Amino acid sequence: MTAKIGILTVSDRAHRGIYQDRGGPAIRDYLAEVLTSPWQAVPLVVPDEFEQITAALISMVDDSGCSLVITTGGTGPARRDITPDATEAVCEKMMPGFGELMRQVSLNFVPTAILSRQTAGIRGAALIVNLPGKPSAIRDCLDAVMPAIPYCIDLVEGAYLTTDKSKVAAFRPKSQ
Amino acid sequence: MTAKIGILTVSDRAHRGIYQDRGGPAIRDYLAEVLTSPWQAVPLVVPDEFEQITAALISMVDDSGCSLVITTGGTGPARRDITPDATEAVCEKMMPGFGELMRQVSLNFVPTAILSRQTAGIRGAALIVNLPGKPSAIRDCLDAVMPAIPYCIDLVEGAYLTTDKSKVAAFRPKSQ
Amino acid sequence: MTAKIGILTVSDRAHRGIYQDRGGPAIRDYLAEVLTSPWQAVPLVVPDEFEQITAALISMVDDSGCSLVITTGGTGPARRDITPDATEAVCEKMMPGFGELMRQVSLNFVPTAILSRQTAGIRGAALIVNLPGKPSAIRDCLDAVMPAIPYCIDLVEGAYLTTDKSKVAAFRPKSQ
Repeated sequence: MTAKIGILTVSDRAHRGIYQDRGGPAIRDYLAEVLTSPWQAVPLVVPDEFEQITAALISMVDDSGCSLVITTGGTGPARRDITPDATEAVCEKMMPGFGELMRQVSLNFVPTAILSRQTAGIRGAALIVNLPGKPSAIRDCLDAVMPAIPYCIDLVEGAYLTTDKSKVAAFRPKSQ
Repeated sequence: MTAKIGILTVSDRAHRGIYQDRGGPAIRDYLAEVLTSPWQAVPLVVPDEFEQITAALISMVDDSGCSLVITTGGTGPARRDITPDATEAVCEKMMPGFGELMRQVSLNFVPTAILSRQTAGIRGAALIVNLPGKPSAIRDCLDAVMPAIPYCIDLVEGAYLTTDKSKVAAFRPKSQ
Repeated sequence: MTAKIGILTVSDRAHRGIYQDRGGPAIRDYLAEVLTSPWQAVPLVVPDEFEQITAALISMVDDSGCSLVITTGGTGPARRDITPDATEAVCEKMMPGFGELMRQVSLNFVPTAILSRQTAGIRGAALIVNLPGKPSAIRDCLDAVMPAIPYCIDLVEGAYLTTDKSKVAAFRPKSQ
């Protein structure tokens, strides 16, 4: 079974085409490098508009059947940064550990890591994870949380993902 | 004065009796080892049902007069894991530092520690703390947060707890 | 342009005058030592009353034009400790990374650091940050988060703050 993975770029500038989307491709490249089970990207670029972000997240999970949706952009304190709020609005459960760990890891690189409001949550059989917009931060954040993602998706009964152990060691506890 | 401590096991399987409750006894053993002030356990096993978890928490605090309630189980991302949500529903104040520290400590053992949604909060003169279901994780989590629990209960005007300093050094600041 | 910075002491005892406010002056001294751009303090002492805390925060941001408001006191679990709740009530966006980092840093000094519910958030063009009441903890917390504060205020279009690099190295990423 091919897993569907939503890759949602949230950016006014990328949406208007005055700026090339680099976050979405960085996520796709990372997943292509790390995942060994079959998967298919469901990419989309939306502006920083609440209704468009929530509609995209709902469609990716409910219509396209994504087991994982990764967003990039819109996680800061600025007026139009609302990706975490839109994520919370469509999730049944929030997963605070993702944001905590990603901020902690990013603090090793920049003190402004605490300004990221990125979070994660569960909608149906899917995990939604927010990443920052900056491509270099995307890799650091995914390295931190990816080991826990396949088991999380098992628990919500999404697709079964496997990883290249030399890149990311996905962890599944032996017994629940 | 004997402190009452609620020990709430949240588990469909333990409740139906098809699985022996190991979380509840692990918490009781830990407290017996660590507490030096008189205390009495108020144990209960409920299924992963919102109404039954909230009713148990309310009864333990409001009726039984527990100063501390420790839950085990139901903290993950799965559909029926709702203990943190039920906890939040009955608390007047949330204490995010407990979940943050317990996840951080658990990350030393398993990368899936970020999947725990465990939290803590205040209801009346009681502190409610969520622990995972796994007995080994229970000990790691309690070791991390127990030093702060007696003073927390002082601040909400619950029972006065003391600990065996060779096991857990409860901290009370000299002056507020 | 002179930045306005609100310094809000939340304390029943300091408000009644039976206790000298030490938190507010500790914040003012810290800022005087660290900031090199022109600024003006907008100080106030209020009791631990929800309506008075929210009214003070709103007035400091909306009427006085503060770009930064720092509160001290009322962050614990006790019945009258409600500063984080009042902060959340007036903010459009919460910034969980501030509380996480300040608790983590304070854990290096006392295990009861997890009892602090301190948080931060954005209202209009201002950042509001909660600090504990204890003067020594104020300095530790500000040392931790101050490097990220000037850039945060840039992002919400508040005043431009600069710092003495030998004291606090404010970080601004080269390109967004």
